[in-house]
Amino acid sequence: MPITLYAYFRSSASWRVRIALALKGLQVEYHPVHLRRGDQFGADGGAAQQVPTLVLADGTRLTQSLAILDYLDEAHPQPPLLPADPLARAFARSLAHDLALDVHPLQNLRVLRHLQRELGQSEAQSQAWARHWIERGLRVVESRLQAWPGFDGRFCLGAQPGYADCVLIPQLFNAQRFGTALEGFPAIQAVAAAAAAHPAFIATHPSRAPDAES
Amino acid sequence: MPITLYAYFRSSASWRVRIALALKGLQVEYHPVHLRRGDQFGADGGAAQQVPTLVLADGTRLTQSLAILDYLDEAHPQPPLLPADPLARAFARSLAHDLALDVHPLQNLRVLRHLQRELGQSEAQSQAWARHWIERGLRVVESRLQAWPGFDGRFCLGAQPGYADCVLIPQLFNAQRFGTALEGFPAIQAVAAAAAAHPAFIATHPSRAPDAES
Repeated sequence: MPITLYAYFRSSASWRVRIALALKGLQVEYHPVHLRRGDQFGADGGAAQQVPTLVLADGTRLTQSLAILDYLDEAHPQPPLLPADPLARAFARSLAHDLALDVHPLQNLRVLRHLQRELGQSEAQSQAWARHWIERGLRVVESRLQAWPGFDGRFCLGAQPGYADCVLIPQLFNAQRFGTALEGFPAIQAVAAAAAAHPAFIATHPSRAPDAES
Repeated sequence: MPITLYAYFRSSASWRVRIALALKGLQVEYHPVHLRRGDQFGADGGAAQQVPTLVLADGTRLTQSLAILDYLDEAHPQPPLLPADPLARAFARSLAHDLALDVHPLQNLRVLRHLQRELGQSEAQSQAWARHWIERGLRVVESRLQAWPGFDGRFCLGAQPGYADCVLIPQLFNAQRFGTALEGFPAIQAVAAAAAAHPAFIATHPSRAPDAES
């Protein structure tokens, strides 16, 4: 049985895993789950079909994008997503968490839907909500990148892309969808430029996913 | 310089780190940051004083509770927070992320304040919002614990507490503050009972923090 990734082209958590798999050079079968049509809601309230889910050759199901990144780095160490030094590892993870914990959960599809359907917010209001948290999170990441001695204007931790970039680049894709201007974020823009020229980010862009819609 | 933890007694992300430090037997200086009074907002919009922040003996500042947990497990391996097997590690992390990514960011203080001040939600409505996401997340964790072969009715991964318990127990504390009933979650209740009898969870309970308020 090949390794299978259950994903949705526009899910930024799915894109994190797709970048990591590309950086590792791992081939997987892609199984689209259409979030907007509600494919993921099973009898157990969604636990069975979380996106992304990576199903290994022996049938083991791995969920949660960052837990999958850590697993991939442990099971397939080369090239590494995380540096060897414990303090640099902590920095990479904390940058990823500044976005994956403090931003993305507040602007994902189910939360914006809940804001509209249950709290009576308009489309424009829910988009303003998303922009608020995205801009707050990008300010944190920008100031931390600028203060990090290892930042050299390429990827978050230097010449090679890794863990933090797997989270930052998909978050920037969302930022642009919600209309966030990136002018005030020069360090982040430098990382975006490095990623835009890197094959793992180019090949996995949501617009190139098998289930991409225009 | 001693290791210093900047924390707030009622912050569940702070409690995660306090449990991990207790499990590792590490002594730190506790520096309270009063979130409700806004102590954490500095000139850089909050990046300088994220809670929790662990400041090491050489002055290095580590942020993001789960990145701190991973750092502690790498720098102080015994006793381990994560098991040795990569698949078990992925399971522990994914349980932690089911709560730390999919629940906690939606019900923390700054988000509930934003709901009230910017979106005009009442106190009762923002509490219902918090309960909605907490109950959704606990259903996911309950079904995953019940399906995990290693679950034996003690901690999430067996006889010893670890990474996932550091996140689950503080989330349950919040669940109770927001009025979530735990009757439908027998596996989670078993973990709560194990933690209630364990010295690391007893000693670090928010009510025992130096800055605790009644």
